Amino acid sequence: MTSGNTRSGRRPGNSGTRAAILDAARLRFAAVGFDKASIRSIATAAGVDPALVHHYFGTKHELFAAALELPIDPQDILDRFAVIPVSELGETIIRTVVPIWDSDFGAPTIAAFRSLLGSEDPALARTFILDVVLKSIRPRVDSPPGTGARRAALAASQLAGLLVTRKILRLDPIASMTVEELAATVGPTLQRYFTGTLPLEP
Amino acid sequence: MTSGNTRSGRRPGNSGTRAAILDAARLRFAAVGFDKASIRSIATAAGVDPALVHHYFGTKHELFAAALELPIDPQDILDRFAVIPVSELGETIIRTVVPIWDSDFGAPTIAAFRSLLGSEDPALARTFILDVVLKSIRPRVDSPPGTGARRAALAASQLAGLLVTRKILRLDPIASMTVEELAATVGPTLQRYFTGTLPLEP
Repeated sequence: MTSGNTRSGRRPGNSGTRAAILDAARLRFAAVGFDKASIRSIATAAGVDPALVHHYFGTKHELFAAALELPIDPQDILDRFAVIPVSELGETIIRTVVPIWDSDFGAPTIAAFRSLLGSEDPALARTFILDVVLKSIRPRVDSPPGTGARRAALAASQLAGLLVTRKILRLDPIASMTVEELAATVGPTLQRYFTGTLPLEP
Repeated sequence: MTSGNTRSGRRPGNSGTRAAILDAARLRFAAVGFDKASIRSIATAAGVDPALVHHYFGTKHELFAAALELPIDPQDILDRFAVIPVSELGETIIRTVVPIWDSDFGAPTIAAFRSLLGSEDPALARTFILDVVLKSIRPRVDSPPGTGARRAALAASQLAGLLVTRKILRLDPIASMTVEELAATVGPTLQRYFTGTLPLEP
């Protein structure tokens, strides 16, 4: 199974195979979660060789991004947060994600999120948020031990609402506030959820 | 034009007229907002007498709730908040709306919200949030003067995100947290947006 594949752009043709792999990936990620969905099992469901999945889509994270029709690999963004001290995560997340939403990458990202919100089964969206977005945050904010999952999910609730009001509903004045204004107002909300004293039973 | 109509349940038949009124109402509310959309203009667009609109749907708020397919008149809930001191609004809102979302009224309310999120033009949803939900809150939290609209919209962003994560995505642990736990964790977020010291230019 090759891993160091070179992805020299999408090939013409073979779109049926690509679509079959993406369909299988969506079903598998939704059914068993990101970690348990192996490239091998997705390849088997799509009736192709695992090497072809890697060849077309690269890493499992990249495959998931493609299955969600995300224009960028979310892991690239999450990697940026990994080097930020926990005490600065709140404002940093706002300063990072809001400009992405507002950029050329924004429209397809928001379209993907809207499509997930509209689907009958939100399992794929849940898998994405729980297994990819929040996974690396949870252990970092697990103080006192046992509170990390709720802290991360509370932050996700604020961030999801900011996305919905600013980019989907385009609700003013949220839609017209600057990144700095949002960092200064919503950033501390995330920070409190991550590291503040919350009345959570461990 | 009668106003003291008695609404003795939905009549059989006339469903075409009701549907025409609701379609006209949706278009009009989305186009000009709640305040400027008169019952008269909606009746004219639907080709019926204004009295018939009142007869079928009651007040303009009730017509709007019907147009949004909401199972309850949102004004009934907003009226409860009007008598709560501003300093207690954050937790009170959580303690009021989360049990409604979790109740039998919840499923149709969430279905309506999902349908609004999925529609190509979010104007109807914007009108609902700006002209109905936030209207009475804004002047109450306008301190220093000029910040009320942003304070109310920031609170709406957190509340929308709580609805999306708890009821649409059903994201654990947000989905399984108790009302009291949410009141104690998310309530202070709303309260800070309403009355906290925020770096907002008046």
